[in-house]
Amino acid sequence: MNRRLVFQIMAKMMCIEGALLVIPTIVSLIYAEWRSAISYGIVCIATVLIFFPATKIKIENKDIFAKEGFVIVGSAWILWSLVGALPFFISGEIPNYINAFFETVSGFTTTGTTILTDIEALSHGSLLWRSFTHWIGGMGVLVLVMVVLPVSDERSSYLMQAEMPGPTFGKLVPKGRAMATILYKIYCVLTLVLVLLLLIGGMDLFDSFVHAFSTAGTGGFSSKNASIAFYDSVYIETVITVFMLLFSINFTIFYLLIAKRFMDIWKNREWKIFIGIVCIAITLLTLSIKPIYGSYATALRYSVFQISSIISTTGFITVDYNVWPEFSKMIILAVMVIGACAGSTGGGIKVSRVVIMFKNFGREIKRMLHPRSYNLIKIDGKTVDESAVSGVGIYLIIYVISICVGIILISVENYDFETTFSSVLTCISNVGPGLSLAGPVENFAFYSSFSKIVLSFLMLLGRLEFWPLIILFAPSTWLRKNR
Amino acid sequence: MNRRLVFQIMAKMMCIEGALLVIPTIVSLIYAEWRSAISYGIVCIATVLIFFPATKIKIENKDIFAKEGFVIVGSAWILWSLVGALPFFISGEIPNYINAFFETVSGFTTTGTTILTDIEALSHGSLLWRSFTHWIGGMGVLVLVMVVLPVSDERSSYLMQAEMPGPTFGKLVPKGRAMATILYKIYCVLTLVLVLLLLIGGMDLFDSFVHAFSTAGTGGFSSKNASIAFYDSVYIETVITVFMLLFSINFTIFYLLIAKRFMDIWKNREWKIFIGIVCIAITLLTLSIKPIYGSYATALRYSVFQISSIISTTGFITVDYNVWPEFSKMIILAVMVIGACAGSTGGGIKVSRVVIMFKNFGREIKRMLHPRSYNLIKIDGKTVDESAVSGVGIYLIIYVISICVGIILISVENYDFETTFSSVLTCISNVGPGLSLAGPVENFAFYSSFSKIVLSFLMLLGRLEFWPLIILFAPSTWLRKNR
Repeated sequence: MNRRLVFQIMAKMMCIEGALLVIPTIVSLIYAEWRSAISYGIVCIATVLIFFPATKIKIENKDIFAKEGFVIVGSAWILWSLVGALPFFISGEIPNYINAFFETVSGFTTTGTTILTDIEALSHGSLLWRSFTHWIGGMGVLVLVMVVLPVSDERSSYLMQAEMPGPTFGKLVPKGRAMATILYKIYCVLTLVLVLLLLIGGMDLFDSFVHAFSTAGTGGFSSKNASIAFYDSVYIETVITVFMLLFSINFTIFYLLIAKRFMDIWKNREWKIFIGIVCIAITLLTLSIKPIYGSYATALRYSVFQISSIISTTGFITVDYNVWPEFSKMIILAVMVIGACAGSTGGGIKVSRVVIMFKNFGREIKRMLHPRSYNLIKIDGKTVDESAVSGVGIYLIIYVISICVGIILISVENYDFETTFSSVLTCISNVGPGLSLAGPVENFAFYSSFSKIVLSFLMLLGRLEFWPLIILFAPSTWLRKNR
Repeated sequence: MNRRLVFQIMAKMMCIEGALLVIPTIVSLIYAEWRSAISYGIVCIATVLIFFPATKIKIENKDIFAKEGFVIVGSAWILWSLVGALPFFISGEIPNYINAFFETVSGFTTTGTTILTDIEALSHGSLLWRSFTHWIGGMGVLVLVMVVLPVSDERSSYLMQAEMPGPTFGKLVPKGRAMATILYKIYCVLTLVLVLLLLIGGMDLFDSFVHAFSTAGTGGFSSKNASIAFYDSVYIETVITVFMLLFSINFTIFYLLIAKRFMDIWKNREWKIFIGIVCIAITLLTLSIKPIYGSYATALRYSVFQISSIISTTGFITVDYNVWPEFSKMIILAVMVIGACAGSTGGGIKVSRVVIMFKNFGREIKRMLHPRSYNLIKIDGKTVDESAVSGVGIYLIIYVISICVGIILISVENYDFETTFSSVLTCISNVGPGLSLAGPVENFAFYSSFSKIVLSFLMLLGRLEFWPLIILFAPSTWLRKNR
């Protein structure tokens, strides 16, 4: 392991986080929230001062491999969360540091679960910082780093690979920095368009930015206690619904759109299957909640928003679905598990993994009937690498084990099964709200510090798709001197 | 597909079931339960009369392949359950046929979930038949057929493969009939020893047979409403605990024991891991329920019995664990998922699958760190075939999908999540009792007919490990004329 280089890259990353903290500092200054401004200012300056010298270490061996990539990504996310939580704690807005850490992890991982009982009591600086962590975390901390810092392309591909969600690492443009820059440009433009549309809908500038950041990162933090239900506006709900779904689609699609490669977009199956799942879930949900609301129109309005919010793993709320029948809640859990498309800012298992699973299942049926047959799995006309297929199987194994271990650890608190199960699922899927005590109009403040740490870890596991954290904590990573 | 041959084998199998129905008929006659005796007698005679002529069809093409094996096993289990349910229905002891079918599927699949509210009201014939279905289903309907009927060895291996639980088909002795006979001999001897030990403990002869059949098949039907708690005897609990665990171990071990191949037994890792899991679960459970019972002795007594009962997927009850804390219940769900060893009469995912999953996970960590490395997975010094490894992955995919679909379908009933989830899990794992409304001192009578059919199907899926039913219902099995 190339420890010096890892250390240097980590230091650079921390300086970037320090620089980003300027934004909430300025916002707090604008709103004359001195206490908050000082907290963000201190952390901002201290972080840069502490880590800047380390960025100047001389590095002779500039080799970076898969192991280093995972270690950097794993520790970067933990360190960013640890430092990003400090302003909440120092300003006294979240007096318990573990709560502040939980809130920050929930931000960066785009989960959007909160431990706050009164969100509106926060300073504007903190409200913006919460949503801004979604925005950064959605695209990926490392992707940002690559845009900002000069990293050689070969090195960067290992970093991208370790952080990008999805079963395969599609090579859109040559790779590395160029790709990261294109992704960020698309991301910024879409976010600004959303801000504009929300302004037109009558949302004020500050709230527009907060909700645009949260939507873009598919996070779910709002500046209102009632979330999107506060606005009670069909226009705002529609705009946010459309953008939640847009941000759930593989960003490759937007690139292809810009490049006018419409045939390639049409050939891509994932987004069509995603839209199909959304439509089926909305239909089932509308039918099941129609008796509660009397009219199909109201039922459809709630269904469209909630399904889009949950499957995109955003977690915005327009209605308390805790009072819905069990069948409706199971639909919500089901789309929570599936999640968004690979290569988007959304979480969950990802549609493309579900597709590979079903194709693998179909292939096995054939193999059972004709034991000597051998078929390759194809998606969009291209053969899926066998190691990607087995990778999906292993992903599922780790996913199930993580959920089981999470449930057992959280069950120590002795809350009802629905609360425990949905809390674990919503955290590992990076959605936000769960069911029962952890339901949409509730928050996670009632959990013990132990559970909050467990849930934070589950959020990170879900966002990073396990490997960076597993490799970071695997003894074999650290024991042997040479790779 | 060789339809004639499939039809002939099916007819032979039904005749065997007809013959087996003589046993409950005789038991009912002994206890002078005329109504019950007549019901069993009628079904017994009618089944043989109807199916016997079909066993005489002339078969020219005696080829049998994997597809035929799966179709025979899948349809045999469904047909045996449909016919085995008739006496309950005809005698009026279970007036609703769907209930009778559920009870019989629960019997053959060794689940042990009941829809009866008063078990002790049943006739002796029916009580014995219920437990006897466990005993037959535990070893496998097809294995029995092979012992009784002359089937060529090549043919039989496809049948065995389709029915035997576990990820790999270990060749103990050459294969087929000889192996089936050895297995049945071991099975009979162990069952008789258990009957003897229960008699010594003061259980009467009838109840001894009922509980011995249920224990041997790791089923869980009792002749008492209170299950094993009725006896409140440490001796009986100990005897049953030991035998539940014995029947959870791969039967190969007993064969090796007879053959005095002690080194091979020692080399086998699965049973040691199984015992390890049992010990860990008992320790955790004892610690978590000690506060309820005050003394470690009582807590340990309940823990040992309940963990053995659940992990062996028997489902006997000595205590209402519904009142235990959530953590204890999660331990119970966890061992329910893991289940017994491959090649035993127990259900669940099976220990050897869990081992392969973890080894595959470990291999993937290595591969992540050193992308060009390639390691084979070894168990007991032998390399595990890669197709078996990927088979475990696919098993998990189907397992998770089945559970999700099951939960969504059952949730239509609008019972609480713990009830729904645990009902699905206990059925697919062939355990018996669940949690909450489906808890250990409850029964499944409250479910609608629709849910009972769904749960019956889940029990069959779990017992047959998916493929026979999937292939039976796959359109491609029936569409193409030639294989």
